[in-house]
Amino acid sequence: MNLDLSLEIIGQQVKAVSIQGATANLVTGIASLSEAQVGDLSFLGNTKYQSLVPACEASVILVPLDYEGLPRANQAFVRVNNPSEALGLICEAVAERLFPKPISGVHPSAVIHASAKIDKTAMIGPLCVIEEGAVIEAGAVLVAHVYVGRFAKIGEGCHLRPHVSIMEYCQLGKHVQLHSGVVIGSDGFGYSTVKGVHHKEAQVGIVVVEDEVEVGSNTTIDRARFAKTLIGRGTKIDNLVQIAHNVQVGPHCILVSQSGIAGSTQLGSHVILGGQAGLAGHLTIGDGSMIGGQGGVINSLPAKSYVRGTPCMPINQEMRLHVLYKRLPDLNARVTELEKRLPAQKNPCADLQV
Amino acid sequence: MNLDLSLEIIGQQVKAVSIQGATANLVTGIASLSEAQVGDLSFLGNTKYQSLVPACEASVILVPLDYEGLPRANQAFVRVNNPSEALGLICEAVAERLFPKPISGVHPSAVIHASAKIDKTAMIGPLCVIEEGAVIEAGAVLVAHVYVGRFAKIGEGCHLRPHVSIMEYCQLGKHVQLHSGVVIGSDGFGYSTVKGVHHKEAQVGIVVVEDEVEVGSNTTIDRARFAKTLIGRGTKIDNLVQIAHNVQVGPHCILVSQSGIAGSTQLGSHVILGGQAGLAGHLTIGDGSMIGGQGGVINSLPAKSYVRGTPCMPINQEMRLHVLYKRLPDLNARVTELEKRLPAQKNPCADLQV
Amino acid sequence: MNLDLSLEIIGQQVKAVSIQGATANLVTGIASLSEAQVGDLSFLGNTKYQSLVPACEASVILVPLDYEGLPRANQAFVRVNNPSEALGLICEAVAERLFPKPISGVHPSAVIHASAKIDKTAMIGPLCVIEEGAVIEAGAVLVAHVYVGRFAKIGEGCHLRPHVSIMEYCQLGKHVQLHSGVVIGSDGFGYSTVKGVHHKEAQVGIVVVEDEVEVGSNTTIDRARFAKTLIGRGTKIDNLVQIAHNVQVGPHCILVSQSGIAGSTQLGSHVILGGQAGLAGHLTIGDGSMIGGQGGVINSLPAKSYVRGTPCMPINQEMRLHVLYKRLPDLNARVTELEKRLPAQKNPCADLQV
Repeated sequence: MNLDLSLEIIGQQVKAVSIQGATANLVTGIASLSEAQVGDLSFLGNTKYQSLVPACEASVILVPLDYEGLPRANQAFVRVNNPSEALGLICEAVAERLFPKPISGVHPSAVIHASAKIDKTAMIGPLCVIEEGAVIEAGAVLVAHVYVGRFAKIGEGCHLRPHVSIMEYCQLGKHVQLHSGVVIGSDGFGYSTVKGVHHKEAQVGIVVVEDEVEVGSNTTIDRARFAKTLIGRGTKIDNLVQIAHNVQVGPHCILVSQSGIAGSTQLGSHVILGGQAGLAGHLTIGDGSMIGGQGGVINSLPAKSYVRGTPCMPINQEMRLHVLYKRLPDLNARVTELEKRLPAQKNPCADLQV
Repeated sequence: MNLDLSLEIIGQQVKAVSIQGATANLVTGIASLSEAQVGDLSFLGNTKYQSLVPACEASVILVPLDYEGLPRANQAFVRVNNPSEALGLICEAVAERLFPKPISGVHPSAVIHASAKIDKTAMIGPLCVIEEGAVIEAGAVLVAHVYVGRFAKIGEGCHLRPHVSIMEYCQLGKHVQLHSGVVIGSDGFGYSTVKGVHHKEAQVGIVVVEDEVEVGSNTTIDRARFAKTLIGRGTKIDNLVQIAHNVQVGPHCILVSQSGIAGSTQLGSHVILGGQAGLAGHLTIGDGSMIGGQGGVINSLPAKSYVRGTPCMPINQEMRLHVLYKRLPDLNARVTELEKRLPAQKNPCADLQV
Repeated sequence: MNLDLSLEIIGQQVKAVSIQGATANLVTGIASLSEAQVGDLSFLGNTKYQSLVPACEASVILVPLDYEGLPRANQAFVRVNNPSEALGLICEAVAERLFPKPISGVHPSAVIHASAKIDKTAMIGPLCVIEEGAVIEAGAVLVAHVYVGRFAKIGEGCHLRPHVSIMEYCQLGKHVQLHSGVVIGSDGFGYSTVKGVHHKEAQVGIVVVEDEVEVGSNTTIDRARFAKTLIGRGTKIDNLVQIAHNVQVGPHCILVSQSGIAGSTQLGSHVILGGQAGLAGHLTIGDGSMIGGQGGVINSLPAKSYVRGTPCMPINQEMRLHVLYKRLPDLNARVTELEKRLPAQKNPCADLQV
């Protein structure tokens, strides 16, 4: 994976304000300040790391305009308004070279039902299966081993990696990205129990994933019992997340890895779930709320809640209680000391009794 | 996904006691009371929601016999003994139409070892792989991209969705349903560590999944080190659950999403694991026990235990302690107040000493 | 799965010190002392179970040299220095018979890019996809349905089970074992948020998995934003584990099922994560540290830390605090009793005021 970027090209890509120093090396890799070696590009994204710059061996370092140091020999500083953003521009340029745009067409090994409608600008990779009545819109890419069930719809510009399953009737909007192993539309987990035996409730709803959603590898999103499970526009979901039937996730949410949402819970917009957080069913979580990692939510939350713990509580309360929790040995000792100072008295009337 | 159900058909399907009002609309969807629109079927499954009925725009509403309201214009109430059960009947009828019975036969793209025994009523979908000596019994359905390893057995009427892996020698009973990405029979996680290096212990047991079990998408069940990992009859397992080697899960258990069971632990019958609950290895969990969501179980539990928390404790104790935990600031203040009232005294004998 | 092992063969395989008694049965299975039946092999791996031996019906039992009992009729005791190790030897011999070495060659149904380099001793099973420029080294086994992306490298002797995805440019060392559904190299979860809209940051790094690593089914390991996500030599990872972008896992670590590591965190060597443990991002965890099951780590830890709880703390502190937590009702009662003994006094000066 050789990048072979010249200092000049880098300067153009990041719209450099100025370049200080020079290097004979082409940039072949990207690394953090502490790990970069000759030939690497690095960046000072956060001023708290600026003490690492003088010892950094990178051939090129993206630094903010006000960084005061000077490059070492055979090293260039590329001065930019925002080094993190500049790094992002470099990464995008690199991505275009590393991951060339797939070529449209249907691989001959794919198994496609005669009634499926596949736009001629879509790419259907090897060993995909597309069932009856499914629709694949313009520019969609199904890399390989993708399963698209009966009457499912894959919107314009979607990108589905290997081993993705889209079950019957489910619908993806535009520019949805699904990573390997994602399952959209497995049956909701619903049973009615009669005399200790669990009878499956038919799950006849669908999943609707709106535009610009991204879903991480091996995440599972169940179809609704009826109507739809919804993932709102622009929401980003990490790996190994569980979303149960009839959940409604609002737009622009962030669901970090291994979090889970039980059935019928509704998230507003811009909600953030930390890693491994769990939400009980039938709750309403207000816009802009944040649930800390491993938090357990068993009641609905108003907008802009910021909670942590199991069961969760407002973060300030949770932090204060945790401090007191850690002081329990001290509190216990204080009570013991008070008990010593104030011994239990004999009943003063005891002696008077016969 | 148009249902196009007439009021008359609905009445028949749910065995209506009576029908009140009428609608010119065919029912095209199913929705909750608060979300239903003209053309939808809705239902009053829980009397606590009855205030939502008058404003509900559904064309048909399933209501209990004793519900006192009247339908609006162009709306029908279908009166039944149990609206939730009636909805279940509708969903089953819809499911039959949406998900037609697969047609038996082997897709030409499937790769099947000459020695595999496949019942002629089974359906082997596109791009499945069936290895040496595997057995697929009557009526089993392998949708697509399913892998069945050497000498594995898939029982009568099983339904395996895309990307399921059944590893060597594992056995599924009758009518087992596995959703996409389920792995049955990956190696147990067992190593012997010598001088800091982990050496793999051969895992030569199997997984046995009994009749009527359902397993959610991307759940993993490891093969035993020896003998078998067992999932008992009628147990239902949600998505992304982990079941380690040699675990024995009794019949009719419910394992909610993202729960995990470490090696050799045994669950009795009718045990319920809440979402994200975790059980340590080598435990015995008695019949009918319930583990709350995110609970952590590190000791065996007698039958009918109901526990919560990490490490878990009986739910009543856990709730009481949590109340006291939230009152720690108050308790701390009370101790401080007592200390003010009873200052540490000088040793009364101190003055007498020389 | 018949083993059909004679007593003589077993004695040879475990290098028996002596054999006591005899059995006419061939050994057909392996079972624990409490579950073994006639025809089984069992073993006394831990002296705490020795009371189970006299009632055990196994035809052959591996016992330590100093075990004092005698076999029953038609039963043999195989005396060995270490029965657990001896069982391991038996399991390895059984494994060789149950899981024969795959035969090298490329299955005709596999889809392989002309530029991919596949060693002639490798086995590429049915319906695998190998993209442009990928390299598959000597003796590697891709069972079936495996996806290997552009320019990825699969090292010598690797063993990849069904439905594994290795994304572009990622690299596996030698003898790496990946179980079904593992995803190596899905995009890291990184966005920059502008006015509430999350914009994807290009993820142009790779994943490097060093020699002798084993990864459990449906585990996900994301590619780095830049440079590499690293899994160190000899590390063993269980099922459904999440490893985020730019994480560095040292050699010989053990990551138990459903644990998760957020972005850029670094683990030293021989770190153990308990099941469902979660680590925040950008932390450093010292060599030999152990994180208890369900533990939540939000700060870096020095070498040989042993922590538990959320947020985690040293295990001794955590256990002591938990004891005090369970005694909160008692502490509360003691404070109430002190308050009774020392009622709040009227201000002694109150009467003197006008």
